[in-house]
Amino acid sequence: MEYQQILDTIKAESLIRSNTGKVASYIPQLAKIDPEKFGMHLYCINSGHYGFGDENERFSIQSISKVFSLTLAMSLLDNELFERVDVEPSGDPFNSLIQLEYENGIPRNPFINAGALVIADVLVSSLKNPKQELLDFTHKITGDTTIDINPNVFDSEKKHSYRNASLLNLMKSFGNIKNDIETVLDLYVYQCSIEMSCKELATAFMIYANSGKQLTDDTQIISARKIKRINAIMQTCGFYDEAGEFSFRVGLPGKSGVGGGIAAIHPGQYAVTAWSPKLNPKGNSELGMYALERLTTLTGFSIF
Amino acid sequence: MEYQQILDTIKAESLIRSNTGKVASYIPQLAKIDPEKFGMHLYCINSGHYGFGDENERFSIQSISKVFSLTLAMSLLDNELFERVDVEPSGDPFNSLIQLEYENGIPRNPFINAGALVIADVLVSSLKNPKQELLDFTHKITGDTTIDINPNVFDSEKKHSYRNASLLNLMKSFGNIKNDIETVLDLYVYQCSIEMSCKELATAFMIYANSGKQLTDDTQIISARKIKRINAIMQTCGFYDEAGEFSFRVGLPGKSGVGGGIAAIHPGQYAVTAWSPKLNPKGNSELGMYALERLTTLTGFSIF
Amino acid sequence: MEYQQILDTIKAESLIRSNTGKVASYIPQLAKIDPEKFGMHLYCINSGHYGFGDENERFSIQSISKVFSLTLAMSLLDNELFERVDVEPSGDPFNSLIQLEYENGIPRNPFINAGALVIADVLVSSLKNPKQELLDFTHKITGDTTIDINPNVFDSEKKHSYRNASLLNLMKSFGNIKNDIETVLDLYVYQCSIEMSCKELATAFMIYANSGKQLTDDTQIISARKIKRINAIMQTCGFYDEAGEFSFRVGLPGKSGVGGGIAAIHPGQYAVTAWSPKLNPKGNSELGMYALERLTTLTGFSIF
Amino acid sequence: MEYQQILDTIKAESLIRSNTGKVASYIPQLAKIDPEKFGMHLYCINSGHYGFGDENERFSIQSISKVFSLTLAMSLLDNELFERVDVEPSGDPFNSLIQLEYENGIPRNPFINAGALVIADVLVSSLKNPKQELLDFTHKITGDTTIDINPNVFDSEKKHSYRNASLLNLMKSFGNIKNDIETVLDLYVYQCSIEMSCKELATAFMIYANSGKQLTDDTQIISARKIKRINAIMQTCGFYDEAGEFSFRVGLPGKSGVGGGIAAIHPGQYAVTAWSPKLNPKGNSELGMYALERLTTLTGFSIF
Repeated sequence: MEYQQILDTIKAESLIRSNTGKVASYIPQLAKIDPEKFGMHLYCINSGHYGFGDENERFSIQSISKVFSLTLAMSLLDNELFERVDVEPSGDPFNSLIQLEYENGIPRNPFINAGALVIADVLVSSLKNPKQELLDFTHKITGDTTIDINPNVFDSEKKHSYRNASLLNLMKSFGNIKNDIETVLDLYVYQCSIEMSCKELATAFMIYANSGKQLTDDTQIISARKIKRINAIMQTCGFYDEAGEFSFRVGLPGKSGVGGGIAAIHPGQYAVTAWSPKLNPKGNSELGMYALERLTTLTGFSIF
Repeated sequence: MEYQQILDTIKAESLIRSNTGKVASYIPQLAKIDPEKFGMHLYCINSGHYGFGDENERFSIQSISKVFSLTLAMSLLDNELFERVDVEPSGDPFNSLIQLEYENGIPRNPFINAGALVIADVLVSSLKNPKQELLDFTHKITGDTTIDINPNVFDSEKKHSYRNASLLNLMKSFGNIKNDIETVLDLYVYQCSIEMSCKELATAFMIYANSGKQLTDDTQIISARKIKRINAIMQTCGFYDEAGEFSFRVGLPGKSGVGGGIAAIHPGQYAVTAWSPKLNPKGNSELGMYALERLTTLTGFSIF
Repeated sequence: MEYQQILDTIKAESLIRSNTGKVASYIPQLAKIDPEKFGMHLYCINSGHYGFGDENERFSIQSISKVFSLTLAMSLLDNELFERVDVEPSGDPFNSLIQLEYENGIPRNPFINAGALVIADVLVSSLKNPKQELLDFTHKITGDTTIDINPNVFDSEKKHSYRNASLLNLMKSFGNIKNDIETVLDLYVYQCSIEMSCKELATAFMIYANSGKQLTDDTQIISARKIKRINAIMQTCGFYDEAGEFSFRVGLPGKSGVGGGIAAIHPGQYAVTAWSPKLNPKGNSELGMYALERLTTLTGFSIF
Repeated sequence: MEYQQILDTIKAESLIRSNTGKVASYIPQLAKIDPEKFGMHLYCINSGHYGFGDENERFSIQSISKVFSLTLAMSLLDNELFERVDVEPSGDPFNSLIQLEYENGIPRNPFINAGALVIADVLVSSLKNPKQELLDFTHKITGDTTIDINPNVFDSEKKHSYRNASLLNLMKSFGNIKNDIETVLDLYVYQCSIEMSCKELATAFMIYANSGKQLTDDTQIISARKIKRINAIMQTCGFYDEAGEFSFRVGLPGKSGVGGGIAAIHPGQYAVTAWSPKLNPKGNSELGMYALERLTTLTGFSIF
């Protein structure tokens, strides 16, 4: 298949498309981004790298980091992890307290904020230096040790984390947070402020397309069985209140972030990422959703 | 792969497994079923039929019929269908009125009762004889014209349909039901009372595994693009409040019914069904879930 | 106290007040009313009748009828009535299905629609001719046998009662409606379409101000103990989602209707009614609320 | 009326009554209380003091303190206070986050925890030394300067305040908390740990029965108009999710606390308090509710 041709088509279509999305503005650091940034990168198991646009510019990965923290936690723990966080789609906005209250402090899944905070709590309990080890994990799966957080984004999010502090306190009242709230919140904000490019993210996501192994040297980062489960969670819960829509239109497991990034995979085939900062009303990159929908339409195959 | 051997293993494991599920009892006709019934059938694109147990005994397909009615409605209408029903997982029990009220009478997806009632309303609007045409559809995709409803189940459900009448009236108050409530309810109860065996259901579900085509003669029943979308909805919404769990443990698109049946598919590979009447607390067949989980574990591959 | 002077002041103030309320429009018959209608009537135990404006023109009493049907039901039954309907304020709009679903079909109180429908069901079970006997009750407590329903309002509401049919079906699924849904709905719509004037309503409400006795001839219509309980329910639940606001600003037990009427009482002192069809966003008469607030402010005394 | 005789009857009846309530146990300090404690005190405008049992033993007033903090806040601010907290009953448990989330961080009323935390925030903004000034307020309205907090209860509650910290963070995310979360929480826990006896509480509540004036020397503590409004809030919101039940059975404005205390008033007549630590499932003193119901039944008059 002529992947570069397909990507060029997507780029051309995207340039003439109207985009009514809005850049995330809840923290000043995210609001400052150039809204016209747009990049895409496709990394195929059989045929390597394709891309266009701002594919090499780093952006704030935000919630996409939840996939990495979940992977790290699942590599440390087995099923006991899922006694503290469920794997069901939420049906409510990503930072909702409502289901959490009805369901006794057990978050619906690891990709809503509450669930990611429980995962952060697990990492604080299990790792000596959780911030560094999480960053190291991104270095290992990308082969790039220059990946780092944006300290301005980190500081800015720390100052606007009342909603997450509320979730943490609520879960602590139910006994589902074991560590100090401040420490857990610190790790969570840290992971959200990591910056990566489309190309780096696609490289990182190859382990999810390749049964848990790095493509470069066949290192098994995490078992194939666990990768399948992470992919299943991405499929049903990766896009906030729009997971069904993404599954319906795109048909791939993936995860989005409010920085405008989306990473998705076709198991056994490829990892793909897109970045455009303007978000649709559900909080997902409007152009990124479109680009991925066009990819599976033009290639004619999705996981379904 | 030695499919029959794998199925025999699943059967043997299942026989020694404790099963705390309960047979659905909201209508007497369902409560009367022998709780020890157990059958499974696998229909592979490349290698044909495998099965065991009560695979040839017909049972009440109940909510599995929602896949057929959705398929019929999607073959008649295009995207306008999804202005009246969404494709997001629900996060609430299958017959909940709550999200419906918050979301102005637009059901979350076509597989919760409210959504299936909207689909039934669409069929009433679009077809001359909707009951017969829906039954004909099952005849066409199975090649078996003896498939029929169970009139006792039909009568029994008609007498216990206050909750569905409540949903219909609520949606009608929002303008999302166009026809007479009694007529729509009648069609919905009719489709739920269809009886099929595991083997017949697996044969019917082959069109979802085979890009919309019948395996026997390559007839395109519905377009490949629409089949992908139906599969995506099965993946995210097919198991009531346990869709994530099924995706996590089994990793296939599928649909369950309170009669104890489950049908699932691996696109490009096979359709598979299991039947055991004892339901877990979420309303899905306990042993059926287990059997399908074992299938993807023992074969070592799911869509993820 | 110079009651007529106080009423004249309220009238004068009201005429120069801007009123952003909207006439109820969910049925055509209510939408047709002249929005500038305004009347008020005060009936004091010690000093008789005062009033102004359209105090003698009949209007659709709508939900105010729920006080009469509750009174009739409480005169027939004792505490067992409150096993089927609670006495707590609702915190949700008057026709919400949500709390009903969470609370197993037991309505929050007799003044939300669900609760009034349970009361109607009780009357259908207990009375030979519930429609006539309810109308007779209004004749008895007013001394006016010409009070009747408006048949156009009745027909119009019957055609727009999907939401109430939804509530009835939902409660029937929980076993909390004993009679045929159609019959119960018919009685409920009937009671809502009764027409009375401000003066007639104030006369009727005198039994709530006068410990259950008619002022004219001391007939005990219902026990003083039960009247206290009805008054308590009016205080906490009489104004939909604005009961607290009415209590806070006016400080009297009362009941409003979407026809723009409000009836309230000061136990041991007076009954008072106001009518102005323009409703505030919570569904209560905007000018009626104001008029009653001014009454307790200018007289300087409320029940608190 | 022979008030002491009525109180003696209530005492005698209470002693032979079974009590299935449970002492609050969420903090060890409250769990340690002798569950058999029982006292009642009635303070009449015209005839002075009556009482029995443990009426002079101090207990943790807990949420009853919310009446004092609201009174202090209303004496400092006027209607602008009610832009930050509503006056509607809640329909949800006292510490629920749900309505708060749906209603953009504006608590339903000042007596649910969220509302009392907003009031505490107001006091932190308005007073130089809010803890001392709140304690001084209890000294002024009782004439007893020995009233103080229980430091063990204070410390114990501080360690178990995750739920309140969650509420504060959630409201801060909506901009409805202006001060440092720790400071506001500190004041709130402080006020809850104040200890008073039945007699002291009844004396304090006399200002609510006496139009805002102290009975001893006619000092106007707060305007009659504001007192009426506080009484209205007590009537509709004073008993968590059981305000309607209390209004229905007792018919007086009042406020309860998880320490087992209840304070209520009959405007123009009396203030009355009861204390028994065993709580019913809604969190109100079971015997206290009974005692007050008997009081209004035996005296034959409530505000209704």
